[in-house]
Amino acid sequence: MPKQIRLNAFDMNCVVHQSPGLWTHPRDKADRYNTFDYWLELAAILERGRFDALFLADVLGIYDVYRGGPQTALERAVQVPVNDPLMVIPAMACATRHLGFGVTCALSYEHPYPFARRMSTLDHLTNGRIGWNIVTGYLESAARGMGMTAMEDHDTRYDIAEDYLKVVYPLWEGSWEDGAVLRDRAGRRFADPARIHRVTHEGPYFRSSAIHLCEPSPQRTPVLYQAGASSRGRQFAAEHAECVFINGPSPRVIGSIVADIRRRAQAAGRDPAEMLIFTMMTVITGRTTAEAQDKLADYRRHVDEEAALTLMSGWTGVDFSRLDPDKPVPAAHTDAMISALESFTTNADPDRVWTPRDIARHAAIGGRGPVVVGSGTEVADALQDWVATTDVDGFNLAYAVTPETFADIADLVVPVLQERGVFKHDYAPGTLREKLYGPGRARLRDDHPAARYRRAQG
Amino acid sequence: MPKQIRLNAFDMNCVVHQSPGLWTHPRDKADRYNTFDYWLELAAILERGRFDALFLADVLGIYDVYRGGPQTALERAVQVPVNDPLMVIPAMACATRHLGFGVTCALSYEHPYPFARRMSTLDHLTNGRIGWNIVTGYLESAARGMGMTAMEDHDTRYDIAEDYLKVVYPLWEGSWEDGAVLRDRAGRRFADPARIHRVTHEGPYFRSSAIHLCEPSPQRTPVLYQAGASSRGRQFAAEHAECVFINGPSPRVIGSIVADIRRRAQAAGRDPAEMLIFTMMTVITGRTTAEAQDKLADYRRHVDEEAALTLMSGWTGVDFSRLDPDKPVPAAHTDAMISALESFTTNADPDRVWTPRDIARHAAIGGRGPVVVGSGTEVADALQDWVATTDVDGFNLAYAVTPETFADIADLVVPVLQERGVFKHDYAPGTLREKLYGPGRARLRDDHPAARYRRAQG
Repeated sequence: MPKQIRLNAFDMNCVVHQSPGLWTHPRDKADRYNTFDYWLELAAILERGRFDALFLADVLGIYDVYRGGPQTALERAVQVPVNDPLMVIPAMACATRHLGFGVTCALSYEHPYPFARRMSTLDHLTNGRIGWNIVTGYLESAARGMGMTAMEDHDTRYDIAEDYLKVVYPLWEGSWEDGAVLRDRAGRRFADPARIHRVTHEGPYFRSSAIHLCEPSPQRTPVLYQAGASSRGRQFAAEHAECVFINGPSPRVIGSIVADIRRRAQAAGRDPAEMLIFTMMTVITGRTTAEAQDKLADYRRHVDEEAALTLMSGWTGVDFSRLDPDKPVPAAHTDAMISALESFTTNADPDRVWTPRDIARHAAIGGRGPVVVGSGTEVADALQDWVATTDVDGFNLAYAVTPETFADIADLVVPVLQERGVFKHDYAPGTLREKLYGPGRARLRDDHPAARYRRAQG
Repeated sequence: MPKQIRLNAFDMNCVVHQSPGLWTHPRDKADRYNTFDYWLELAAILERGRFDALFLADVLGIYDVYRGGPQTALERAVQVPVNDPLMVIPAMACATRHLGFGVTCALSYEHPYPFARRMSTLDHLTNGRIGWNIVTGYLESAARGMGMTAMEDHDTRYDIAEDYLKVVYPLWEGSWEDGAVLRDRAGRRFADPARIHRVTHEGPYFRSSAIHLCEPSPQRTPVLYQAGASSRGRQFAAEHAECVFINGPSPRVIGSIVADIRRRAQAAGRDPAEMLIFTMMTVITGRTTAEAQDKLADYRRHVDEEAALTLMSGWTGVDFSRLDPDKPVPAAHTDAMISALESFTTNADPDRVWTPRDIARHAAIGGRGPVVVGSGTEVADALQDWVATTDVDGFNLAYAVTPETFADIADLVVPVLQERGVFKHDYAPGTLREKLYGPGRARLRDDHPAARYRRAQG
């Protein structure tokens, strides 16, 4: 069987995610993000299209670098308002049977003991369809909301993450043995306390001494996602993640990231082929090439370049409003923007000179990811090419107009991929981890660092 | 119109809540607490019975005072395992139109900035059907899970609560003015940043400087519930709560608590008649008196007295396993148990001597609350008597067997109350606060302390 392509939908509990300004498109429904209707319609579309998962981004803060304040973000709905992503998952899970849910929870902002319970609860309720995107947080405005005077520096945040995992891993994997739960009504014994264990951790950032509050859920540890782009981030992903989100402009860039992550995973003692790597992309498709191009042109009339620069300023820490929009971005800013600019060299031309206006135009649809435009067949060709040349496992698909973008993919691209034998006709049974890795794989593999917290079974 | 009686259902995201051992009853379904099925069935029953709200208790810890460890609690499912209560609400909200949801969230364990977002998100999604039970936490085991060496003392916990509210109130009430959200697609303006404000708090326990991440939700501040029994707790309730949960064995005891709370509310400058006070109760009913009594006898065969003492030990801090089960509880322990023992003097006999076995028998159905047994008519008589003699506004109804207890009330008691004109035939329109207080009352009253954080409207 040829390599199967995986698809995630990429969304956020806000008015517009990666395509600034497009909430103003007459067919866009994301400004109803605060209703169940929006999420239930989306979930039904994704399950119809056999998407593996809906991946929910989150940012606990406001993009306030551009013009030195939050005004533009607030006026243009640049990922603000932003509601809690966890609260929409139970409703969607109730209305679907197979769709997975990857949710971003920044571990800087909640103690691991109650967080472990939250994830276990969701894993129970969804029958094991939950994934967790481990994020350390990246906005200063979020740190100030939490009462900190400044955000921890980048590498310290990963130290905090490592310490956090040393609380949640043993709670999920080691506190309750398999078989600890008896549910013996006749014998009046719900559980065998001899098989339930206290977990104690005394780390540099977190301390905890507790029995996990939840009985074992189908997956125990949720499927672990990670998206760090830095060297430290990739190392963290190689050690802990099962699914990795990456971003890059061209097969050349993506291919080298994929190879690097698989190499690091192998060095960490894990099976590199098991790292499922998703690259971000925005697909605009129609029944014909012309229809897809018309759609793109229509969408372009609604983009908001200033909002795009607001996003870019938040991502890079550089206030783009202070630069001449039509002059090349000065070298002094280059370091801070290397990864940001890389995202736009879709022609993989390292010598191209970028102005803020160029950047805004490119970022206004699909954020920092590439945009693929064409008929279903053309898009399918492109996706297969990316997989063949980069070794990615699938795509994290952002929207231009929602849920239209996702419905178009489900209706026009997925059938082509299915016909070509590279995309499932039906979901595999079982948990999200089983759907990704196969039967019997509900739990983390033994070569994962969380596995060391498991107890020998009685 | 005669005074209307309010009914809340009282449950917890665990195997058995207030009737230890009864999870073993063949018709009890609470051990399916970790499935959506249980919660959707419950929500449908409650909405059919026109219950005002489902009130979800929560304890982030394990009852480990009895026998000096958690073994009995784990073996007998004494409120453990206990899943996150927030995660079941979106699914139930999706499947109902009017039922309110009061949820217990202990403020010692989450920073107010992300918590404010969580509540606002739920208030949006449910169209304003959310209430928050403000709890400071009371188990040492929870504090240890959070990495603290010991729980803060009782009065300090209320100081922390006061400080916490000084962050969430202005986020909910003052950060976004009414009218700040424009949703102007043609003008490409989602919001008017001039009408959105940063909230800064520098308190002894919490600091925050942030714009609320959510646009105003239907109620802004969720309906505020509180259940403190101590003098400090009642004072806190009188100042902050809209709905108060109390507990007591007899109309005499309850009446004096109700009067005290209303007196304190008035002294705090609030309208005492607006404090909606719910007393805990367990109702066992049948089509006839005999059927109700048979049901009680049947239930009694499944109670677990040792599990009841495990609960009591956790509530009082006294290890009942160290006392002779058949000798009166020694005077040395009396202080710690005054409120606990009060709960059992259903005959209002202050001179009665209690043994641990007496206490266990009484606590094994309905925890510390009174149990009312009889036909629908008899129960309706009893509820009306309690309201008439104590001035309570309604009842927080625990279950013996779930969801059977709630279905019985919906089918046998509610119709009698409706016929007598003391219970609504249909829900009032609007948010939970409007259903409780009437049209136009979606927001907190102006005499509530949170109202001072409102901005004059443009």
